[in-house]
Amino acid sequence: MASVDVGVGLLGYGTVGSAVSRMLAARREEIERATGHRLTVVRALVRDPAKERESSSDARVLTTDFEALRDDPRIDVVAEVMGGLEPAGAYVRELLRAGKPVVSANKQLVASDGAELFSIASAAGVQLRFEASVCAAVPVVKVLRESLVAENVHRILGIVNGTTNFVLSRMERGGTYAEALEEAQSLGFAEADPTDDVSGADAAAKIAILATVAFGSRVLLTDVQCRGIDSIEPAHVAAAGAFGMAVRLIAIATLEESAVDVRVQPAFVEQAHPLAAVEGSSNAVVLQGDAIREVTLGGPGAGGIETASAVVADLVSIVGTSGTGFLQNDACWRELPRLDPAEWRSPFYVHLDVADQPGVLGHAATTFAEHEVSIARLVQHLEPGRAALDLVLHDAMIGSVEAALDELAASPEVLGRPFIAPVIAA
Amino acid sequence: MASVDVGVGLLGYGTVGSAVSRMLAARREEIERATGHRLTVVRALVRDPAKERESSSDARVLTTDFEALRDDPRIDVVAEVMGGLEPAGAYVRELLRAGKPVVSANKQLVASDGAELFSIASAAGVQLRFEASVCAAVPVVKVLRESLVAENVHRILGIVNGTTNFVLSRMERGGTYAEALEEAQSLGFAEADPTDDVSGADAAAKIAILATVAFGSRVLLTDVQCRGIDSIEPAHVAAAGAFGMAVRLIAIATLEESAVDVRVQPAFVEQAHPLAAVEGSSNAVVLQGDAIREVTLGGPGAGGIETASAVVADLVSIVGTSGTGFLQNDACWRELPRLDPAEWRSPFYVHLDVADQPGVLGHAATTFAEHEVSIARLVQHLEPGRAALDLVLHDAMIGSVEAALDELAASPEVLGRPFIAPVIAA
Repeated sequence: MASVDVGVGLLGYGTVGSAVSRMLAARREEIERATGHRLTVVRALVRDPAKERESSSDARVLTTDFEALRDDPRIDVVAEVMGGLEPAGAYVRELLRAGKPVVSANKQLVASDGAELFSIASAAGVQLRFEASVCAAVPVVKVLRESLVAENVHRILGIVNGTTNFVLSRMERGGTYAEALEEAQSLGFAEADPTDDVSGADAAAKIAILATVAFGSRVLLTDVQCRGIDSIEPAHVAAAGAFGMAVRLIAIATLEESAVDVRVQPAFVEQAHPLAAVEGSSNAVVLQGDAIREVTLGGPGAGGIETASAVVADLVSIVGTSGTGFLQNDACWRELPRLDPAEWRSPFYVHLDVADQPGVLGHAATTFAEHEVSIARLVQHLEPGRAALDLVLHDAMIGSVEAALDELAASPEVLGRPFIAPVIAA
Repeated sequence: MASVDVGVGLLGYGTVGSAVSRMLAARREEIERATGHRLTVVRALVRDPAKERESSSDARVLTTDFEALRDDPRIDVVAEVMGGLEPAGAYVRELLRAGKPVVSANKQLVASDGAELFSIASAAGVQLRFEASVCAAVPVVKVLRESLVAENVHRILGIVNGTTNFVLSRMERGGTYAEALEEAQSLGFAEADPTDDVSGADAAAKIAILATVAFGSRVLLTDVQCRGIDSIEPAHVAAAGAFGMAVRLIAIATLEESAVDVRVQPAFVEQAHPLAAVEGSSNAVVLQGDAIREVTLGGPGAGGIETASAVVADLVSIVGTSGTGFLQNDACWRELPRLDPAEWRSPFYVHLDVADQPGVLGHAATTFAEHEVSIARLVQHLEPGRAALDLVLHDAMIGSVEAALDELAASPEVLGRPFIAPVIAA
């Protein structure tokens, strides 16, 4: 097949955009060999060309004029690597409506406006790809949409935020949350304002995107039950270790009897589970389905070059599937109800500080039993006048466990707030 | 885009073939939504239709006539799931030459005749896909060829044989190789004749395929340096544990200064490395490149349904890229030289049994130093009249280490054959 020239437009020419441009140039031959097409950056939209010129050998492609890029007949496909909701969102909408396929690296945009963008793309008969918006170079979106196309994926488990994973891994070697966070900041693994990461908001956006793709039903950010890692204490990390587990911020999406549950929270992961082995700032995602049982994907979840690599892969995939109708139907093709959050089931770890009085343990066990929650393992640490109880509960509805804990917390013998985290069994 | 009917031919209708047929029927809607096409099995080649009829709701598609299948104008794509070199190879050649894209699940065929088949497919302008030939449902071929198309992948590390991984994982909990193998056989994880697995031959075929795809240069089975697990003793497993490592059968393909090295052997894997966490019969592959650093893929590496899932994904990918020129150039586009096997570099673990005489340790250290091999860690276990030395060596050429060991083995104070295994550092 004769090679064909494909013009690429870039929205944004920062770290990722310039890396995409360099990568397309450096790997032109390999890409032509794979696709039969030559990909060349034709225009790149920037706010201030003077600012970007230094780093670019391609200064002549820089423009500040979006309309010129949109209407450039040489441009066959556009990569949005500018970030932020607007004007990126408006640009992507216009491009899709104009019949240009779009690759977006924009987690915020896809998580927030994905369903609308999928629908616009489908109506226009063009593809929207967004591998780089979740876990950078880890090809989880492609594997979900293509390799597992014939698979009923019913559960996704992921470590999708490197900052929190670094902090929690670090706490395993001793020290408080504040100390670990400070080290992450000094090493560049956490930002000066780490709120978006430690609150779980970043992970929530990523799992919302993955759940939407896997289940074919729109999952909003507000659908994600989200708890961050700032309440994790050294005692929790030690308790996890004593049970042969590791504390990790886990994003979980579940499809159960046609209802969807999506949540992000610290979880206790059994050491033999693949996610317990994910150290430092790495990401990993486990996809569970009927036929494949479980496929795990891991790698660097962030970084300019890693993100650019995913953008280039998406550009190549668009070129390689162009005109076949592949992945052009609306990715959100059904509306699934949400599972009542209280009905979500899991085994759980629970920590209780109690007064060291006779009968306290019996009272706790009775209260759990009354809520149909059974205790799998229990460790009691005695201190003068008080005791700490670490419990692993069998699979139960979270609403039942919380109701039992509320009841216990109201009794004077329970000191402070109980702590609860799901257990991820190997 | 209007949906189009796509006729699928199957070569073989055993466990995998019938599962492909069932999966295409059960997931018809999902596949149509993703591809805009309806995939239907039109004919399936079998040797004895009476034998297969029982398990099949599709008895009417069974045929014993290959020419009828090849010449059936309704058939747009064929999946070869019969296994074995011949007649499968002859059929695949004929189909490709007739302009039919082919999906093969046949590890033996792709490892042995892949380069020829790629060339035939490329000349005919059709795709040959073979995801299921390596690690079943783990989408390593697709990720290598598509997600990492712009990536210079220079190293592949994998646990690609579930039987040996089960045996080695089992030995960590105590017992001999023979006992672990017997348990694997009784649980169905090893065959009555386990030679193909324990010798490393199965892993060698898989890494030869992956290296060919990743490096674009034909890697023959005879290019693979191969050592099996039958020489692994409980003492090796214990020594690995003492160094914080696990013994695993590791397939390694390296591209170093434009020369290729491919090998399969027991290796000592540091516990923090993702491959150390691969337990039981699971498979996992680590792809290392410049931009992505490292992407890890894991999951079930065998099984009829898992294999069928990969075949269906390949069928869908062919439909989704049809007519675009994607992946139609010869996958073997260059001829890279082989690295001199003696020049392959790694850190190593070495075990020596020596007489408990003064100066033995000094002699060993001097001999290593004379071959420019330096010792990173050493543990000496004293027994009456003898000593066992466990050493971890710094990165060195395997030829140098082996020369030092040959020299040491020739001296009367060294008892028995030294044992050597590469170390996979985290």
